[in-house]
Amino acid sequence: MSARLSATDPLPVVPRAPWSVLAFADAVLRGIGQVMLQNNRYAGLLFVIAIASSSPLFALAAVLGTAISTATAVWLAVDRPSVRDGLCGFNGALVAIALLVFLQPTALTWACVVFAAAGSTVVTAAMSGMLKTWNVPPLTAPFVLTSWCFFLATARLGRLEPTGLLPAAMLPRAATVDGVVTLVTVGEGLFNGVAQVFFQQSVIAGVLFTLGLFVSSWRAGALALAGSVVGLLVAWWLGAAETAIHAGVFGFNSVLVAIALGSAFLVPGWAAMLYVLLATVVTTLVAAAVSAAVQPVGLPGLTLPFVLVTWLFLWAAPAFRRLRLAGPDDQA
Amino acid sequence: MSARLSATDPLPVVPRAPWSVLAFADAVLRGIGQVMLQNNRYAGLLFVIAIASSSPLFALAAVLGTAISTATAVWLAVDRPSVRDGLCGFNGALVAIALLVFLQPTALTWACVVFAAAGSTVVTAAMSGMLKTWNVPPLTAPFVLTSWCFFLATARLGRLEPTGLLPAAMLPRAATVDGVVTLVTVGEGLFNGVAQVFFQQSVIAGVLFTLGLFVSSWRAGALALAGSVVGLLVAWWLGAAETAIHAGVFGFNSVLVAIALGSAFLVPGWAAMLYVLLATVVTTLVAAAVSAAVQPVGLPGLTLPFVLVTWLFLWAAPAFRRLRLAGPDDQA
Amino acid sequence: MSARLSATDPLPVVPRAPWSVLAFADAVLRGIGQVMLQNNRYAGLLFVIAIASSSPLFALAAVLGTAISTATAVWLAVDRPSVRDGLCGFNGALVAIALLVFLQPTALTWACVVFAAAGSTVVTAAMSGMLKTWNVPPLTAPFVLTSWCFFLATARLGRLEPTGLLPAAMLPRAATVDGVVTLVTVGEGLFNGVAQVFFQQSVIAGVLFTLGLFVSSWRAGALALAGSVVGLLVAWWLGAAETAIHAGVFGFNSVLVAIALGSAFLVPGWAAMLYVLLATVVTTLVAAAVSAAVQPVGLPGLTLPFVLVTWLFLWAAPAFRRLRLAGPDDQA
Repeated sequence: MSARLSATDPLPVVPRAPWSVLAFADAVLRGIGQVMLQNNRYAGLLFVIAIASSSPLFALAAVLGTAISTATAVWLAVDRPSVRDGLCGFNGALVAIALLVFLQPTALTWACVVFAAAGSTVVTAAMSGMLKTWNVPPLTAPFVLTSWCFFLATARLGRLEPTGLLPAAMLPRAATVDGVVTLVTVGEGLFNGVAQVFFQQSVIAGVLFTLGLFVSSWRAGALALAGSVVGLLVAWWLGAAETAIHAGVFGFNSVLVAIALGSAFLVPGWAAMLYVLLATVVTTLVAAAVSAAVQPVGLPGLTLPFVLVTWLFLWAAPAFRRLRLAGPDDQA
Repeated sequence: MSARLSATDPLPVVPRAPWSVLAFADAVLRGIGQVMLQNNRYAGLLFVIAIASSSPLFALAAVLGTAISTATAVWLAVDRPSVRDGLCGFNGALVAIALLVFLQPTALTWACVVFAAAGSTVVTAAMSGMLKTWNVPPLTAPFVLTSWCFFLATARLGRLEPTGLLPAAMLPRAATVDGVVTLVTVGEGLFNGVAQVFFQQSVIAGVLFTLGLFVSSWRAGALALAGSVVGLLVAWWLGAAETAIHAGVFGFNSVLVAIALGSAFLVPGWAAMLYVLLATVVTTLVAAAVSAAVQPVGLPGLTLPFVLVTWLFLWAAPAFRRLRLAGPDDQA
Repeated sequence: MSARLSATDPLPVVPRAPWSVLAFADAVLRGIGQVMLQNNRYAGLLFVIAIASSSPLFALAAVLGTAISTATAVWLAVDRPSVRDGLCGFNGALVAIALLVFLQPTALTWACVVFAAAGSTVVTAAMSGMLKTWNVPPLTAPFVLTSWCFFLATARLGRLEPTGLLPAAMLPRAATVDGVVTLVTVGEGLFNGVAQVFFQQSVIAGVLFTLGLFVSSWRAGALALAGSVVGLLVAWWLGAAETAIHAGVFGFNSVLVAIALGSAFLVPGWAAMLYVLLATVVTTLVAAAVSAAVQPVGLPGLTLPFVLVTWLFLWAAPAFRRLRLAGPDDQA
């Protein structure tokens, strides 16, 4: 999001250049790629194929959500480079999939998908202005807030019907070490962790997502796998349930944190890689904490842990003299 | 609230001009009017009559609360135009009614009313300074935070006794469509929605409040009714319980959002009216979400949905090129 | 924390002056003193003795936590005056004790203590940059957030085992007046309230802590006792349970608020003392509210009430013309 969306700046009058169908499709594919911070159309295409390998319906939702939020950004005349690079699409992609995962696929839910995807662009515009105070991007916070709003509302609005995947509201209780972690847990959990970024639990999808990352950047691909492994191992060491480790639910936030800090926001180097390692360890703890904190209201933690940890480590980065923040051109 | 209340600005020494009884009474009436964003003494007077038609006790509380918070502002030497226009009174009015609705009317509760109304002015001063960073006013957030503090404390302090109206702490569950919406639901719900801004559930009070709005501004009156209708219809469409729709609980936040955005903060026009329509629809969803989110701690959502949606739409407004924010003189 | 830690400032290259063992030990003792806002090595030493009088294990944890967070600050090259004055140690001291109070003393918990104490310095660095926007220090917020993260995570990570002192997650219910307050309640509660700042419930420890405060500053000592008395009396008046009053749980936040506003952040005077009195009364209410608000997720309120009330009263202070904020050199 550019400075143009700030609440305090005057808006320059910009003539709207026309968008060709091809240019728009390119922006949509890049928008899907940006869910994992990749400004790369082929990565986006492979991500769509990865989702479709697990669920064609969700692949359709991801494309639709990205298209709607990107079109909203075009209509609002958000600066062209941001739209072109897919920066106005990734929250729409995630909102669309999340609504279809956690709400019954009624006509009303599809209407909500359209409304929420368009709304995610507006929320992104509002948050970008707010967060400029602290010099950090909104990341996927607009997706989390928009989705939570719909999920919470199911408790008051009877026609918004949750699926069995939406956690029931419960009081958190102390966990016990549960299940035996085997090589299968680790091997499948590794790729499930990558696939869970798009709400998929599928080794094949995870492999395709990773492939898409390597097509865009070997560093991003390696960081994703490393993030998933670290998240999984730390969760195992601290006594997480085997089913959760296997499903990759302790992986996806670490994957995003690793890619974001390791290849997008910090200038790479050995000090940066140590910092990323630390961040992925912290992410596991924060993911567990966020999940428990929202349990009494029956919400999933989504990617809030990724957002919180990335913000924290961006704010703290200047204290570490060996770290350098990447320039604004690299930031999502 | 003016810049004078900021935590960072030096305070100029201002000679205290004396306040006549009449000028103070005028400021109090305007303060009650400002609960619906009206800087108009006749609107304030009609609002008091409207409350009294339903409950003389609450009318007394509203006047007392506004008088105390306005007097506190005078004592703190808040800039005279803000005090004169009632901008330091409306949070006190709402705190006073809320405490008497949700706490038993003991002597201690009345002492709390005095303390909380004075405190609301201090909280407003503190929040005004904070929110200047983001260029938005505190709206009724000081009322919500102050009231919540007392309601939560009832769980630890036995002499703060809640009434049966304070929601019991419960885990939110998925709602089912409940009850049949009839013309009575819609007709009465429309005016109950306006009356609920002052915690009243009464068609007569609702009509008097609307009359007060029309006396001050035909636009504000029309927007209030439109906001109430939209909130009610969207809630109905999404499957809210008939009793809630009838009682106007899905109306009052939409009423406030419509008045605030449609007649106070945005320069009117057809684009602004479409934006207001969108905001009132979003408000219904946010009202349901906030209500569910605070259910495990046993709180009512109060006007937090109004505050959140108004902030969001003010921050996002610059992204919409056809919208213009009203100048600072129009802002509450 | 100095401006050097801000996320937006460029970092000057500072040559690392070597730290002698004595200078480091001095910084650690001052760090323990800073838990009660005292930049005084003798106060810190007496605080360690006070903790040890009640529990040698916790005294060890406090020293270890302070040493680790101070060492982290040295390694990060935080500006020397901040480190020397103990400003990078007090959150580490509190995190270390809190983790050992609320988690079983396993090897893993001790590893968490080391990790969390070091992390508290990083969180402090990040928050200092954020809060500069509002011109307030982070106080003990880094301790609260870091500790809460571990406590919440016990619901997902089976090897993080809570002790019986961690509150079970429950829905808050309206309190009833419970137990009879006697002279013993008041006399012992007074000193327990001071001791609870360091999680101790012991009159002897409370006396030693108070002694340490008087050694550093008669004003701080008097304010601590006054804060504890006010917190206790207000809680009694509002109907808190006798066991809670006796244990000092309504005292420690008021103690910290009284010391912070009365001797650190405001220029003393009779107007400042009235303001401090008001703040300690508000603290009792906020302490009750925060405790109830986090009950459904099974957390203790820790010193969050102190942080919130101190911020609120610092933001509101400029509205009171007879108050003067102390210069930046006096701020923690």
